[in-house]
Amino acid sequence: MRQAEERQSRLTKPARSLGRLEDLSIRVAGMTGQLDPPLDQAVVFTLAADHGVVAEGVSAYPAEVTAQMVGNFARGGAAINVLARALGARVVVADVGVKADIEDHAAVRSVKVARGTGNIARGPAMTIEQAVTAIEVGRSLVREEEARGLHIAITGDMGIGNTTASAAVICALTGLSPDRIVGRGTGVDDAGLERKRAAVSRALEVNAKAIARGPVDTLAAVGGLEIAALVGVILEAAHSRTPVIVDGFISGAAALVAGAIAPTAVGYMIASHRSQELGHGEVLTRLGLEPLLDLELRLGEGTGGVLALPLVRAAMRLLNEMATFEDAGVSDRVEGAP
Amino acid sequence: MRQAEERQSRLTKPARSLGRLEDLSIRVAGMTGQLDPPLDQAVVFTLAADHGVVAEGVSAYPAEVTAQMVGNFARGGAAINVLARALGARVVVADVGVKADIEDHAAVRSVKVARGTGNIARGPAMTIEQAVTAIEVGRSLVREEEARGLHIAITGDMGIGNTTASAAVICALTGLSPDRIVGRGTGVDDAGLERKRAAVSRALEVNAKAIARGPVDTLAAVGGLEIAALVGVILEAAHSRTPVIVDGFISGAAALVAGAIAPTAVGYMIASHRSQELGHGEVLTRLGLEPLLDLELRLGEGTGGVLALPLVRAAMRLLNEMATFEDAGVSDRVEGAP
Repeated sequence: MRQAEERQSRLTKPARSLGRLEDLSIRVAGMTGQLDPPLDQAVVFTLAADHGVVAEGVSAYPAEVTAQMVGNFARGGAAINVLARALGARVVVADVGVKADIEDHAAVRSVKVARGTGNIARGPAMTIEQAVTAIEVGRSLVREEEARGLHIAITGDMGIGNTTASAAVICALTGLSPDRIVGRGTGVDDAGLERKRAAVSRALEVNAKAIARGPVDTLAAVGGLEIAALVGVILEAAHSRTPVIVDGFISGAAALVAGAIAPTAVGYMIASHRSQELGHGEVLTRLGLEPLLDLELRLGEGTGGVLALPLVRAAMRLLNEMATFEDAGVSDRVEGAP
Repeated sequence: MRQAEERQSRLTKPARSLGRLEDLSIRVAGMTGQLDPPLDQAVVFTLAADHGVVAEGVSAYPAEVTAQMVGNFARGGAAINVLARALGARVVVADVGVKADIEDHAAVRSVKVARGTGNIARGPAMTIEQAVTAIEVGRSLVREEEARGLHIAITGDMGIGNTTASAAVICALTGLSPDRIVGRGTGVDDAGLERKRAAVSRALEVNAKAIARGPVDTLAAVGGLEIAALVGVILEAAHSRTPVIVDGFISGAAALVAGAIAPTAVGYMIASHRSQELGHGEVLTRLGLEPLLDLELRLGEGTGGVLALPLVRAAMRLLNEMATFEDAGVSDRVEGAP
């Protein structure tokens, strides 16, 4: 990081004029331990699961959409596929906990831990064993990609009901009220928002004992299978010094859990965008991360993460490819000029 | 635009969940008259000129840096070169009004209208004829690129002293006080900022009669040669229905002039980023444009414009390549769900 900072100061531009891209380049140099880390092999981990809390009427879409969208990912028709093709990433789609049987697509990794979670408004989402297994599934997916030469990871999610589970995780870990965290997700109306807030409040009450035991218990009690697997993706990326672009609200919940388990993991996270989902700003504040984009997105899948990828790559190329004042024969600023 | 909006509503995502990228795709469809316009041939017009007002001590860098940076552009070592290579654009560097002789570089277009401008704090920057010629230079550069198949234009600038001239143009066209518009540019200290504000105030007084005559007279009186050429770039792009990414504070001044000359030109502008330069927010507000990025940049050259390019291309690919609910067999939202 010191070397990167020093080099930034010698590049042919006014000091600090590349703003947050300079900070980003210094952070990525620190994460990877390299001034010029390769970043071409980018993988977005779009992990899918279902949520028992959908029974509370918390989503504008029926639960079967989770499985249908996995099919859409497999055929390359979803937003994340388009963005990955356009911006140079590969999509790894994994069924971590979809309720339905997923057709056998070559493009979908079948790593199902359970057929959806329990209804968190009535009891725990899953057992501790399931949560730990799902975390391990996420770690394994990253390890497999590392064996193929992964340079940068991006988190993504698909799961009808998962903004509700994520809000519960965020409230449980931060102590913030559901009023400040629960948002409209895919676009519920006012009555749906009321049901969603009530479901999260009940989830926090019903699972209070588990929540008090710590982050993994909280994840098991009120989280989701894709959220748990994303915790694993983040922890494994951090462990291997691979930068991880953390995308949106669901991944934000996973990032909070990862940070509670291993505080140093936050140092490997890059926040992609500020989501439209109500509580996302609080998540970013708690993580101490400033997102790169603010495009009023609220789609999930890892879409904001892939959109941020060109900025990360560009930041590193600027650090490495720009001429220095000395090399270019350009006069540096006159101290106390004129 | 109607067709694009209708298609957005059928794509496999919650309504409006791609936020500002949806609006952008609808606007670009309108600009080009095509749902799927080609956008691969992108050119950033990095136009260079010097400014007589530098004599007032308004910059942290000596005036010879303009010519030195043109050499840096020609050798491919500047930030704009790195970003263009990384993100798929070509850089057209043109000497519209650099004071020094520019070495004959194949990569630099020599279209010098004059050797810098006069000191706007003491008199006019240039004659009306020079301003009109510079506008025409900008138009010609775009026409030449259109003959080679230009799909999207990006405005860029290089000119020590040009934030001072741009501030004067912006104050003159908006009636806003220099206190609200004049910023630190490349990074002047408090005393430099005071000199800069004073220079702009004097420029507005000294050139008051010309300013009252309208936008082209204002441009000639307090503008700059690269600013005038950028007015031409924007007007010609709009004229030929080519989207133009308008980058930063200097291009913002040019965009205000272009919009004052031809109000419909604003419909072809895409604002790249919110600059750190003080008055840029007011420029964007007057143009009615919301920038795509906010990365605390203040470098110029067209850097923010090239950084925004992947977002524009991605927005159009999403519009065109995503599956619809019907095609993908994905259930749309249940009205009044659940």
